[in-house]
Amino acid sequence: MEKIKIKKMMDIIPEGKSVLVCGLPGIGNVGRITVDYMVDKLKMEKVLEIYSTHFPAQVFVDREGKAHLNRNTLFYKKLNKGKSLFVFTGDFQGNTPEGQYDLSWQLLEIAREMNVSTIYTLGGYGVGKLVDTPRILGAFTSLEMKENLIKNGVKFPEGEPGGGIVGSNGLIVGLAYKFFHLEAACLMGETSGYFPDPKAALEILKALSKIIGFRISLEELVERCKNLSELTEKMQSEMVDKEKKEDLGYFQ
Amino acid sequence: MEKIKIKKMMDIIPEGKSVLVCGLPGIGNVGRITVDYMVDKLKMEKVLEIYSTHFPAQVFVDREGKAHLNRNTLFYKKLNKGKSLFVFTGDFQGNTPEGQYDLSWQLLEIAREMNVSTIYTLGGYGVGKLVDTPRILGAFTSLEMKENLIKNGVKFPEGEPGGGIVGSNGLIVGLAYKFFHLEAACLMGETSGYFPDPKAALEILKALSKIIGFRISLEELVERCKNLSELTEKMQSEMVDKEKKEDLGYFQ
Amino acid sequence: MEKIKIKKMMDIIPEGKSVLVCGLPGIGNVGRITVDYMVDKLKMEKVLEIYSTHFPAQVFVDREGKAHLNRNTLFYKKLNKGKSLFVFTGDFQGNTPEGQYDLSWQLLEIAREMNVSTIYTLGGYGVGKLVDTPRILGAFTSLEMKENLIKNGVKFPEGEPGGGIVGSNGLIVGLAYKFFHLEAACLMGETSGYFPDPKAALEILKALSKIIGFRISLEELVERCKNLSELTEKMQSEMVDKEKKEDLGYFQ
Amino acid sequence: MEKIKIKKMMDIIPEGKSVLVCGLPGIGNVGRITVDYMVDKLKMEKVLEIYSTHFPAQVFVDREGKAHLNRNTLFYKKLNKGKSLFVFTGDFQGNTPEGQYDLSWQLLEIAREMNVSTIYTLGGYGVGKLVDTPRILGAFTSLEMKENLIKNGVKFPEGEPGGGIVGSNGLIVGLAYKFFHLEAACLMGETSGYFPDPKAALEILKALSKIIGFRISLEELVERCKNLSELTEKMQSEMVDKEKKEDLGYFQ
Repeated sequence: MEKIKIKKMMDIIPEGKSVLVCGLPGIGNVGRITVDYMVDKLKMEKVLEIYSTHFPAQVFVDREGKAHLNRNTLFYKKLNKGKSLFVFTGDFQGNTPEGQYDLSWQLLEIAREMNVSTIYTLGGYGVGKLVDTPRILGAFTSLEMKENLIKNGVKFPEGEPGGGIVGSNGLIVGLAYKFFHLEAACLMGETSGYFPDPKAALEILKALSKIIGFRISLEELVERCKNLSELTEKMQSEMVDKEKKEDLGYFQ
Repeated sequence: MEKIKIKKMMDIIPEGKSVLVCGLPGIGNVGRITVDYMVDKLKMEKVLEIYSTHFPAQVFVDREGKAHLNRNTLFYKKLNKGKSLFVFTGDFQGNTPEGQYDLSWQLLEIAREMNVSTIYTLGGYGVGKLVDTPRILGAFTSLEMKENLIKNGVKFPEGEPGGGIVGSNGLIVGLAYKFFHLEAACLMGETSGYFPDPKAALEILKALSKIIGFRISLEELVERCKNLSELTEKMQSEMVDKEKKEDLGYFQ
Repeated sequence: MEKIKIKKMMDIIPEGKSVLVCGLPGIGNVGRITVDYMVDKLKMEKVLEIYSTHFPAQVFVDREGKAHLNRNTLFYKKLNKGKSLFVFTGDFQGNTPEGQYDLSWQLLEIAREMNVSTIYTLGGYGVGKLVDTPRILGAFTSLEMKENLIKNGVKFPEGEPGGGIVGSNGLIVGLAYKFFHLEAACLMGETSGYFPDPKAALEILKALSKIIGFRISLEELVERCKNLSELTEKMQSEMVDKEKKEDLGYFQ
Repeated sequence: MEKIKIKKMMDIIPEGKSVLVCGLPGIGNVGRITVDYMVDKLKMEKVLEIYSTHFPAQVFVDREGKAHLNRNTLFYKKLNKGKSLFVFTGDFQGNTPEGQYDLSWQLLEIAREMNVSTIYTLGGYGVGKLVDTPRILGAFTSLEMKENLIKNGVKFPEGEPGGGIVGSNGLIVGLAYKFFHLEAACLMGETSGYFPDPKAALEILKALSKIIGFRISLEELVERCKNLSELTEKMQSEMVDKEKKEDLGYFQ
């Protein structure tokens, strides 16, 4: 089997320059939540699917019992003023470093074909504790991009993220710049990393819609954040109660 | 060495549509027990063997001292009414995800050559406890298949199997549907997963023989199930006795 | 870099049928000790070296400070009556299953070129305790070979070796038979597996020289076995002394 | 993606024979510190960069927030009398043995193109304790080199380094000699291995500048060694103080 197989659903090559947003699974699933939300709210269309021997050897089974091969998917939406938006998401990033390089490279070849000129990869920045209003951290490849990101609220605190950016989010940005002459940046939303985190996704989406220039209803995502906040508050107060009781028991 | 090598024993391309049943080693060895039993009882003929660098680097040595390379094997049997049956079994599934993809793809190319139109992969569904009458769970790729499976006693409980289907059983079904336009389903027999389990194999075989339409004597398999039941009952009663004695000792 | 690179030192294609003996590193280093001894005592000539990305990424540094790449080497010796003997040994078997398949296959292609008709792989059979007179266990591919091996003292006890033969010793035999139509057998000398074991090598060499038909002085190997026996006896009696003293201390 | 990609910055093929010095990351980071210092002090020019799927799948993010793909880099400097000097350093050695072989081979093909006739690889020799004046140990491929190295203070103590040379430092030397007919040696500076070690780098640089014949200001490196010595002495005396106090506490 070829290492990467592409299944096209739609023949589309936008005339003007287009933008690509990538949100694969990762810390707090921030990137994937953001992009899944965009696909849903912007009613984006499926362009193609990527299958690969670099993915885990398994199928998902949905609630009806239907089996689905692991895959990544590219979606498309025509924006105002001749601009085009592509988003990329999916089930996995690739099992090995080599697989992640291969899959990132393949995506960039597709992006070139689709006249993409700018790429944003989205991810979480794990901080190991609950965050009220997550910052959005950035990593850039050209200074013009950096200035524009800062204007839209993205932060570049010195020394963060300390360990670099691991996985596809980093590779896509690095390869895009070095080998495809595309502008690329990575946006990382602060997250505890303990659970799928809509809050970081919300903050990323606020910044991203201004940066790229598209309108999207955030209502449902705000609702999910509220539900999550209630849940975590409830859990915390229950833990405090429990500790208090245990403390009393201890001192009696 | 090429990654996969095929050794043909027999030149056969059935005229009508044929069915392929796969039973490779896995949880409770359910798939392999079922298919080995079919090969034996239906007196099936060897069509070809698959050798691969994706298998562990070792040979089996049989009781006489003869060395055998790891391999998978395809068998054939002409059924009534021009129908043909192929089954596939063997020693291993492939060491790595890439190997499992490669081997599954290779099998599907062979299946296409052999005019196979429908594939069933067989496996165990590990539940971690002894089961009296194992359910057969299914995963399908087309709704027509699902209906036919339900009619023959296969269950599709919502949310099961939760973690998807890992390994060749899943890949063969997923790849068959996406890239070979073949109908495919996976049948999983409930099993404790603690030992090779003829009971799950028996239930699968009852369903499968009705679904595909072949007759097979189940007597010997029923016998093996009875022997296993006696053995597990004896072990359980011995454990209860031992616990009782220990309890007595404890309270004296 | 190509995965396997061959460096030829000598152009030789024997006219008659020749025999190949393989002794790569493994349990008790039995195979390698045997073949290294043959190379030395029979004054065999270097035919070629094999280098490979399947070997560990390191060089050995000898006592003078010279660096040596990991390699396997083929040696040659003309025997009486037009017979030719090749032996193969080296530093490693290959890092991965795929590497071991590749390297075994490559050796068999060389063997075919060299008119080899029969192959013996040599190894240790780890039994986890000191053995006075190691048995030689065999695994065969054709019944004629088995009979000849038995005549020369090789044993085929039912169910041994239980776990098959892991690594090149097994693969070379299995691939030789299935894909190269060569006769092949594996000879395994019983060994504790705790240290490099000349005793198992000695017993293998006694049998092998009769099976293939060559003369070799065993004196030096016998000497090494005696030295090892004295050493292990001394260690054992010291351990007994130490235990006695400790026992006394314990009871005082 | 191809496994190795080269990005050229400069077209240079020196007329005379040139020398290549390699200092990749490793024990005490000795090789990399040495070569980075040479690049800086000798004002060397970037010739090319190597990117590879054999490197970890991540990007570094610098203090400004700019993302950098993992890479190795070749630098160039014209020395006196028509001699040319190349140095090679970078972020990683390759994730796997196969990757390390591939990357070493690629470098040697570049070296051949650049008329390189002699190669020195630099590394640390971990001894697990602080060393006042690190020895420089060597491993050679031709006896002429050895004599020249000894004359310049390199040691060849029998049996050191015991475990051979692991990674690129060994492979480059071994492959250069066996397959590219280049002279090659490895110089290893003794180091504790506990932290990046400028002392070993300093001693290597003293020897290397004499061996190859170039002048370099060592002032700044001497300064870094002094700073490190002060730091480690301070830490040691603090530990002694702490132990004394604990001892007092223990006996009171």
